[in-house]
Formats: sequence, C-alpha cells, structure tokens
Amino acid sequence: MAPSDISTRLTRALQENAPVGPGIEPHLQAVIFESAAHPGRLIRARLVHAACIAHGLEESSAERLACAIEYFHLASLLLDDLPCMDDAQTRRGRPCPHRVHGDASTILASLAFINRAYALANLSFAPQPPAVRIAAHACLDACLGTSGLVGGQALDLRFAEGAGDARAVTVVAVRKTAALFWLAVVFPALLAQPSPDELRALKALCLYWGLAYQALDDLDDIPASSGDTGKTSGRDRLLQRPNLALALGVPAARTRLERLARQATATVTRLEQTHSRWAYLAEFHRTFFIGQVSTLLDAASLRAA
Amino acid sequence: MAPSDISTRLTRALQENAPVGPGIEPHLQAVIFESAAHPGRLIRARLVHAACIAHGLEESSAERLACAIEYFHLASLLLDDLPCMDDAQTRRGRPCPHRVHGDASTILASLAFINRAYALANLSFAPQPPAVRIAAHACLDACLGTSGLVGGQALDLRFAEGAGDARAVTVVAVRKTAALFWLAVVFPALLAQPSPDELRALKALCLYWGLAYQALDDLDDIPASSGDTGKTSGRDRLLQRPNLALALGVPAARTRLERLARQATATVTRLEQTHSRWAYLAEFHRTFFIGQVSTLLDAASLRAA
Repeated sequence: MAPSDISTRLTRALQENAPVGPGIEPHLQAVIFESAAHPGRLIRARLVHAACIAHGLEESSAERLACAIEYFHLASLLLDDLPCMDDAQTRRGRPCPHRVHGDASTILASLAFINRAYALANLSFAPQPPAVRIAAHACLDACLGTSGLVGGQALDLRFAEGAGDARAVTVVAVRKTAALFWLAVVFPALLAQPSPDELRALKALCLYWGLAYQALDDLDDIPASSGDTGKTSGRDRLLQRPNLALALGVPAARTRLERLARQATATVTRLEQTHSRWAYLAEFHRTFFIGQVSTLLDAASLRAA
Repeated sequence: MAPSDISTRLTRALQENAPVGPGIEPHLQAVIFESAAHPGRLIRARLVHAACIAHGLEESSAERLACAIEYFHLASLLLDDLPCMDDAQTRRGRPCPHRVHGDASTILASLAFINRAYALANLSFAPQPPAVRIAAHACLDACLGTSGLVGGQALDLRFAEGAGDARAVTVVAVRKTAALFWLAVVFPALLAQPSPDELRALKALCLYWGLAYQALDDLDDIPASSGDTGKTSGRDRLLQRPNLALALGVPAARTRLERLARQATATVTRLEQTHSRWAYLAEFHRTFFIGQVSTLLDAASLRAA
C-alpha cells in the first residue's frame, strides 16, 4: 500500500476507534475528536501497522493495534502539554486542547485514550498463545509505567533538581522517547515470537532510534536550528528541561546523532539479513529515519556555511 | 479468613504490587507509596478477593486482581481531588497528594496505578479461555472509559451546565459509583462464566449498590447529616456538583436509599438461591452494606428525634 493510502486509512481508523459514545460530555468529546483528527505524522502507527501485516495479522486487527499505540502516544502528548507539566500553548500548529476545553477535560480525554488503547491492544492479542500475551502485557507495563513513559515524564519535569548532564538527559530520553519506539517496534514484534537475538536487536534499534529522535527534537528546540514544527520551541532552556544540545553543545549533539544513525543502520541491516520478516524496519529506516536526520544535518550545515 | 486478616493481606499486596522501581523520581514514588499505604476501607478490593476465591483462583492471583481494581479506584481518587477537578484539600484524613507533591506528580502517579492495574488484571485473566478474556477486556473498557468512570467524572464536573435534577444526578452516579461496583462485582464474576440471568442480576446489584452508596455519600455531604469521614464535606452545593439529597431533599433521598437497599437485598437473595457461588455477595451485603445504610439512617433518625 502507498504511504498516503496507509495514512488515510490510519487517520480514519483513529476516528472510528475513538473512545466516544452516547451521552458523552461535549467538552470531553471535543478534545477526543480534535486530537484523533490531527494525529501528526503517524510514525508509530505506521510502524505498528507494517509490523502487524508482516507478522500475519489481518488488516482490521493491524489497524486496531496501530490505533492503540497512537492513542497511548496521543494521551502522553495531551498530558505533557498541561500547565502543570510543560505548559505548552500549541501542538501541531493548533492551540493545545487544555487552552480551549480546560485541564480537566484534557486529563479525562487522555485517560479515555489510554483505556481504549488497552482495549484495542488486548483485543488484537486475544487469539495469541499465553506466552505471547503475557510477554505483551509485560511489555506494555514496562513501556508505559514508572520504568517507561510515566517515569520518564516525572524525571523530565524535575530535571532541574538533578545533575543536568548528558547522562541525565539520556536517562529521560530512554524512558520517554525510546519507550515509545519500544511500544511501536518491540510490542507488535512479539506477534512474530522473535528469537532472543532478534529481540535484543529490536530493543537496541529502539534505543538508537529513540535517542536519535530525541537528539533531533533537542536540536530542533534550539531557536538557531529550529524549523517550523508547529510546536512551541526554545522552551527547554526556559523550563530547564533535558536537552542534549544544551548539555553537550550543538556540534557534539550532532556528532552523537550521526553515530546513533550509523548504529541504527547497522542494526536494521543485521535484522534484515536474519529474516525477511524484518524488512519493514529497514524500509522505514531508509525512507523515513535517514531522511529526517539528513534534512536536519543538511539544514544545520547550510546555516553554518 | 477473618475480615481483619484479609485487610492486612490486601494492604500488604497493595504495597508489594505498587508501580515503583529503580530510578523512580522521588515525588512520584512518594505519591504512589503514600496512596498505596492508606487505601481506605478496601470495600472493592475485598469484594474482588472474595469473588476470585469463590470462583477458583489461587490466593496470589486473587490478591493481584483485588489490587488491580483498588488501583483503578485509587487512580480515580487522585485525579478527582485535583484543583482542576474537585479541588479537595484532604482525603482519608490526610492532605491530598497534589497539595504535598504537586499536580504533575499526582497525575503521573494516577497513570502509573492505571497501567499497573491493567498489567495485574491481564495477568490474572491470562489463563482463561478466549471468550472470558474478551468479555473481561470489554468490561474494563465499559467501566473505565467514556461510558464509565471517565465519562461520569466529565459529566460530574460540568453538572452545573445541565438540568441539575434527580435524573442528571443519577446518570453521573451510574457512570461513576455503579461502574466501580461493576468493576468489583461483574468483572471478577466473569471468571465463573455466569449465565445470562446471573449476569443480569449481577449488573442490577451493581446499580442498586452504586446508587445507594452515592446516596449515602450525598447525604453525608450535607453538613447537617455529616459524620467525620476524613473527606472535605459540604462541597457539593458549593461546587454545584450532583447530589441526590440536594436535588430531592433529604427525606426523599432517604426514602430512595431505603428502596435501593430493599432492591439489593432481593437481588442478592435471588443470586444466592440460584447458586452457592454467589454466597459471598449476600455475605457482603448483610455484614457491610446493610450495616452502613442502617448506621446512616439511624444517625439521621436520632438527630431528627
């Protein structure tokens, strides 16, 4: 399927599976509908969808699992933007929902997305053998809980109370950004019952991708290197939040990004050589990831020239 | 097992299963530990534990499922008390966690409890046949999502924008309080693969118990009829929140409470006659529910005398 077809289908699926129903309070419904209708680039949903198809799930089940992971992501964005967290004003070029519908409706919409995400994920894994289902539940617990997204966000918010060095920045990036890739890569890969070697490689890939994406985001947050991402920028310094480019300097952060990209390339190549069922990861890496890294590094080089 | 033994075991299980781990941010950990260590009367956890034992689960699995439901409940209390929601100052006689550790840590702790609750619930249901697991996932979605707790809280907060009559009060109580009983009664009962008639009776019982408990809580919130519950009282009128005693008047609310208690008694009696596996519900109803209703009605009568 062409990428644009997939995006269209996933965008429709996100609206169809949204947690709304009869008698829902209008503000809550508005936050849910607006969030589901403006889902960004769907990187994680497309990765999950590709994994599910590669691992033999039917289209409807693949879409459900893709929606599940995207809903977890959406929920984390809604909460991260709250005044008591990042106090963001805009997201994806639009006013944040809490500014339009209030904090309470935004928190409740986030919970509704999480709840529906669990329902969809559980449904997609329901026909699997017990060992796969138990591994899947443990994976969600690790990625979403205090060792993953929730724990990462807590460290992120209290970053100013810690050492503030590159190591502390990396710990937050592992728990937040790498955990989201883990959800999008390792979680659906459990359907294929990967070998221990494959599982190790998949986890390493998530680490490289996650840290690289966070480095991209951090470089993007530095006003001098920022493009128009539709997000509030330059806030990491202001809010004393973890930022690799602030901790290491822009040149060293760029060097690290290049190294992470090379490590990711080596890992997907190894996975692809192990088994053709991992070809979708190499495809994603080449068409999407490398493109993004190159664009940022080229743009920075042009500005430096 | 004696009630006090069960409470001790469940309190310990709540702390042992709490979503904390290495490298957790200290404020997040404090909210989680303090919440898990002061869990209130454990009504729902004890109901779930009794159900699991009656339906053949092992002690460790019964404790896990009891913790899961109590964590969902704990999470909803943490969020309900936030300044953007009920703006409560105290809960269970202690300052609310958001007043000590901030809103962000409280929201993240709530998410950590929800995430761990799903992990525990999924683990307890993992050995069940597919139909039971699918019914269990659908039950969680219905109880926790926009048709349950999340949707009820959204309607609760915007209650002042609606009709404000007894019907609107009841809609909120069904989605919030009855949904929590549904989680504590219908959800573990799925382990017993109840007949359609039994399932209908269980759902009716949750409705009667839920509405009765909400009526008790509403009467308790009226300062003239309030005891010392460790919660902030008299807030429903102040915050224009749904309260049956405000919508109907205290005498009519008491009459309704008495009717609900009679309906619940008739339902547990019928269930007990259908099959001995429902005896724990009749036991709970007689020793706990009827006691609570009588205490409140007697106290009100004494004051009226």
